[in-house]
Amino acid sequence: MEPVLLGAVTILALLEQAYFSLQVIYARRKYKVSPPNTSGPPEFERVFRAQVNCSEYFPLFITALWTSGIFLHQGLSCVCGLLYLYGRLQYFWGYAASSQGRLAPLYFCAKALWALIGCSSVGVVLSFCRMYLKVDLLQITASA
Amino acid sequence: MEPVLLGAVTILALLEQAYFSLQVIYARRKYKVSPPNTSGPPEFERVFRAQVNCSEYFPLFITALWTSGIFLHQGLSCVCGLLYLYGRLQYFWGYAASSQGRLAPLYFCAKALWALIGCSSVGVVLSFCRMYLKVDLLQITASA
Amino acid sequence: MEPVLLGAVTILALLEQAYFSLQVIYARRKYKVSPPNTSGPPEFERVFRAQVNCSEYFPLFITALWTSGIFLHQGLSCVCGLLYLYGRLQYFWGYAASSQGRLAPLYFCAKALWALIGCSSVGVVLSFCRMYLKVDLLQITASA
Ligand SMILES: N[C@@H](CCC(=O)N[C@@H](CS)C(=O)NCC(=O)O)C(=O)O
Ligand SMILES: N[C@@H](CCC(=O)N[C@@H](CS)C(=O)NCC(=O)O)C(=O)O
Ligand SMILES: N[C@@H](CCC(=O)N[C@@H](CS)C(=O)NCC(=O)O)C(=O)O
Repeated sequence: MEPVLLGAVTILALLEQAYFSLQVIYARRKYKVSPPNTSGPPEFERVFRAQVNCSEYFPLFITALWTSGIFLHQGLSCVCGLLYLYGRLQYFWGYAASSQGRLAPLYFCAKALWALIGCSSVGVVLSFCRMYLKVDLLQITASA
Repeated sequence: MEPVLLGAVTILALLEQAYFSLQVIYARRKYKVSPPNTSGPPEFERVFRAQVNCSEYFPLFITALWTSGIFLHQGLSCVCGLLYLYGRLQYFWGYAASSQGRLAPLYFCAKALWALIGCSSVGVVLSFCRMYLKVDLLQITASA
Repeated sequence: MEPVLLGAVTILALLEQAYFSLQVIYARRKYKVSPPNTSGPPEFERVFRAQVNCSEYFPLFITALWTSGIFLHQGLSCVCGLLYLYGRLQYFWGYAASSQGRLAPLYFCAKALWALIGCSSVGVVLSFCRMYLKVDLLQITASA
């Protein structure tokens, strides 16, 4: 398997994070909040925190995306990954508009991330059984 | 080598981070600190900072775990990785209880992380010698 | 391809982040800013924010480095990676000295990171054409 699709989703994720960073830079200019300051009007703080929150989850997302894609199924992981990235965009815009606006997209993202973690776990268990126990659970299930 | 064990430790790390995030969400409710705010009573701030600190080191940890596991030895990396994750749990609970409580587990985590970085370095140097200098340092050491 | 050079740059990146963390710990002692506090004199806040900013971009950097190195060219990615790491060191020192001092190195780092994202994209498109469309764009370009 060449992980081309995982690579494509990864690049989208990088572009999304770059976009969030640029929004913080514009908000710093607009609301005159110069580094190292991070507090200012609520409008600024929401954009600032939205980017921080997305950055915090970015490594979790990339890790789950690739673990799930390598151990279980590339296409399935990429679908969950695209949903997550779509949700994060909504989260960022929603949070920038109002604190309340971040909630619905956050639940959506959480579901997509849990799906990736779930797929990763299934993939790792299947691989473990195949490698160390010489048992192919998929084949057993199929022939049952 | 199929990196099944690295995958398993990675999933544990993801679950641990998810647990930390949930604790911050509960603490936000308990101490009534609504986003985008991040300051509140010290009890809240310690939980909040504990999660931030763990998130900050998560990418370093995953990177060192896999570099060490791929270039040197999967099992050894996973042992260091499990120690690190155990230390981080203690760090989170210790920091939530008191600022002082974070210190002992932090030193423990730092040691586990340095071990992973050390293993990574040894692994990369060995691979470099094998690939580019056509010298197998392990074999030379063994026959010496 | 064994990704030895990517591994070497990755270890350098880990060491750099460890160095930044240690600087924050020293600054906390020097300016007496005990956790969970994060505000203090501007000298402290600049060191603190410099490390936060570098940590925020670390996962983006590692992700772009490896995507570019695996899908396009290991050596080229490592050169961009080394430039990025050099720029981050200048960023950290510049930001620690004055807010203004962070700007020039930041633009430099941004360019190195965009180069990595650009290389990743080219690599993924080439691989996609090769795998799914059975078209080797490199060969077509070479024979044109
Ligand atoms: N978290 C960053 C995101 C955007 C960014 O990378 N900004 C650059 C240019 S203003 C920076 O150096 N920020 C300083 C900082 O993060 O303290 C921020 O708050 O500014
Ligand atoms: N760092 C996060 C960790 C937990 C989390 O992801 N919280 C969600 C739901 S309360 C959020 O949207 N936080 C807003 C923020 O991080 O500013 C926090 O401080 O809240
Ligand atoms: N972001 C960290 C970087 C350095 C670090 O890891 N410090 C340790 C020892 S002082 C810590 O536990 N920091 C507490 C915190 O991050 O809230 C900091 O602000 O301190």
